[in-house]
Amino acid sequence: MAVYTDVAAEDLARFLAGYEIGELLAYKGIAEGVENSNFLVHTSRGNFILTLYERRVAEGDLPFFLALMEHLARRDITCPQPVKNKVGKTLGKLAGRPAAIVTFLDGMWIRRPTAAHCAALGEALARLHLAGRDFSMRRENALSVAGWRQLHEGCRERAHKVERNLEAVVAAELDVLEREWPNGLPQGVIHADLFPDNVFFLGDKLSGLIDFYFACTDTLAYDVVICLNAWCFESDHSYNVTKGRALLASYVKTRPFSSQEWEKLPLLARGAALRFLLTRLVDWLDVPQGALVRPKDPREYARKLRFHQKVKSPRDYGVIEP
Amino acid sequence: MAVYTDVAAEDLARFLAGYEIGELLAYKGIAEGVENSNFLVHTSRGNFILTLYERRVAEGDLPFFLALMEHLARRDITCPQPVKNKVGKTLGKLAGRPAAIVTFLDGMWIRRPTAAHCAALGEALARLHLAGRDFSMRRENALSVAGWRQLHEGCRERAHKVERNLEAVVAAELDVLEREWPNGLPQGVIHADLFPDNVFFLGDKLSGLIDFYFACTDTLAYDVVICLNAWCFESDHSYNVTKGRALLASYVKTRPFSSQEWEKLPLLARGAALRFLLTRLVDWLDVPQGALVRPKDPREYARKLRFHQKVKSPRDYGVIEP
Repeated sequence: MAVYTDVAAEDLARFLAGYEIGELLAYKGIAEGVENSNFLVHTSRGNFILTLYERRVAEGDLPFFLALMEHLARRDITCPQPVKNKVGKTLGKLAGRPAAIVTFLDGMWIRRPTAAHCAALGEALARLHLAGRDFSMRRENALSVAGWRQLHEGCRERAHKVERNLEAVVAAELDVLEREWPNGLPQGVIHADLFPDNVFFLGDKLSGLIDFYFACTDTLAYDVVICLNAWCFESDHSYNVTKGRALLASYVKTRPFSSQEWEKLPLLARGAALRFLLTRLVDWLDVPQGALVRPKDPREYARKLRFHQKVKSPRDYGVIEP
Repeated sequence: MAVYTDVAAEDLARFLAGYEIGELLAYKGIAEGVENSNFLVHTSRGNFILTLYERRVAEGDLPFFLALMEHLARRDITCPQPVKNKVGKTLGKLAGRPAAIVTFLDGMWIRRPTAAHCAALGEALARLHLAGRDFSMRRENALSVAGWRQLHEGCRERAHKVERNLEAVVAAELDVLEREWPNGLPQGVIHADLFPDNVFFLGDKLSGLIDFYFACTDTLAYDVVICLNAWCFESDHSYNVTKGRALLASYVKTRPFSSQEWEKLPLLARGAALRFLLTRLVDWLDVPQGALVRPKDPREYARKLRFHQKVKSPRDYGVIEP
C-alpha cells in the first residue's frame, strides 16, 4: 500500500483542466498497488482513478499498457479505460511523473476466493487472451525464463537468509527450466499478474480486471498457471484441486488448450512459481529502510514450486484433459 | 498514510447491510491519516468514509467524537456527519475494530496555504468554538500541560539523538510552562489538531473540517496557536507575519479575544510548540521496524518553540490587539 508521490490540489486542478471530466471536488491517495501511486479523483462527473507512474515502470512501456486497455475495452473486456485529454492524449505529466486518468471500475477484490470465483476468473482470462489476438503492439516479458538467471545472480548469496538451501533449489530449478522451457506454445497478450487484488467482483459476478502494468507478449498458458498459483492454494499452502479444476475447466471452455499446452502445464507452473519466488526474494532482501510497502513472503512461492515439482501429470491439477 | 486493518468485501457488505446507504459497489483504503484506517466506500447512493478505530484511539472516547460531529453539523459547521445505522447507532464493529460510517466531504487540503486560506481558517475555527459552546460532553486533553512531563520522561534520555541539547531545552521549557500556564482563560471544545490536511477547500472557499479524533475540552486560544504553528510558518521555518495576521484578525472578528487571551498568546504558543515537539519526538524515537507511517521531524517544532520564546508581545504575531 503506498502513495509515493504527493500531488498538490492546485497542480491536480491545473492537470484536470486539460480534460473534460468535470470540476475537481476531492481526491484521496489509495493505499493499494505497490508499483505506482494511485488517487481516487472525485469530480462533478463522478469518480476516476489517477495513476502516477513511479520509477519501476519504464516510461517507454506506458503507450503499450494504455493502448492495450483501450483495445480490450473495445472488445468488451471490463478494464479501466484511459481517458483522453482535450488534445486526444491519454498520457500526461503531473508532479514530475508520467500520469494518466482512467475510468473508475465498480467492484471489490475477494480476500477469500471460492471455486465459483476461480471459475469466473478462468473464463475472464480466456476472454482476455482471445480479445488480445488482434492487438498489434508487442512487449517482451522481462520476467520470463530469460530474465530469471539475472534475478538469481542478484540475490543468490543472501538467499539462505530466507530459507536454508534456497539458493541450491533455485539454481537446480533454473537449469531445468532453461533447458526445457517450451517456445512453441500459443502466444499473445498476457496479464502476467492476475492476483486476486487485480480482479473485481460484484457479488459472485466478475466485474472487471485491473492493473495491466505487467502485461506483455508471452505464452498464454503461462498466464493461466500464474493464476493457478495465485488463486488455488489455501493459506496453509495446500493445493485446492476443486478451485484448480474450476479455473482450468472454465478457461478451456472458452479457449481450449492444445495437447502441447496440457502437457507443458506442470513445467509452466514451476516457472510461474520460480518467477514470483525470485522477485519476492529480491524485494524481501532489498527492502529499503522506511519502506511504505511490506514485502511479501518469498517462501510461499518456494512451497508452490515444490508442489509443482512433484506433479506427475496435468491431471493432478484436477482436470481430465480432452 | 496507512491502512492498518484490511477489510474483506464480504465482511463490509454484511456491515453495510445494517445501514440504509445503498448497495456496496466499491471501496478503497485511503493513504491518509495516521491514527485510524480509513476507506472510501462507494455505494449506489454515493461516496462515504468508513473509519476503523485503531489502538491509539481509546474506544471510550468514540461517543464524544461522534456526538461532537453531529452537534457541530447541526450548527452548520461542515464536518463529516456520522451515519446512523438501522437501529439508530453511529458506532459499530468491523474486522474486530470499532467502526463508523461518516459522510464524504468534498474539498481538498491545501499543501501551500496562502494568507487567504489562513483567514478562512481563522473564521472557521472561531465558528467551531462558538458552535461548541452548548455541547454538553467533556473530554480532558491528555496532551496538554499536565501530560507533557510524562512524554518528556519517556524520551528525555534519547532526545540528544535528534538534536544536541534538546533534553535541556525541553526540561527548562516544561518548568516555565508548568509554572505559568494560564487556567482562567475561556474554555470549550477545541479541535486540537487543525493542521492543513484536516481543512478542506474548494477553490479559496473553506469547505469543511475533518478528523476530530483529538478534539477535547480545553482553552480556546490554545487551539488558535496550534493553528498558528501549523499554518503560518514557511518551509524555511520563518514565521510569516502576513499569514499570522490573517488568521488572528479573522478569528477575533468572529470571537474576540479577551485582553487576558491576547496577553497569554505567546505562552500558549510555546505550549502548542512543545506539545507537538514532544509527541513527534516520541514517534520519531519509537518508530517500529516496518512502520507504514513516516514520522514527522520533531526539530521543526523545536524551531517554532525557539521563535515563540523570543516573542516579546502578541503584537509580534502581526495583530495590534484592540
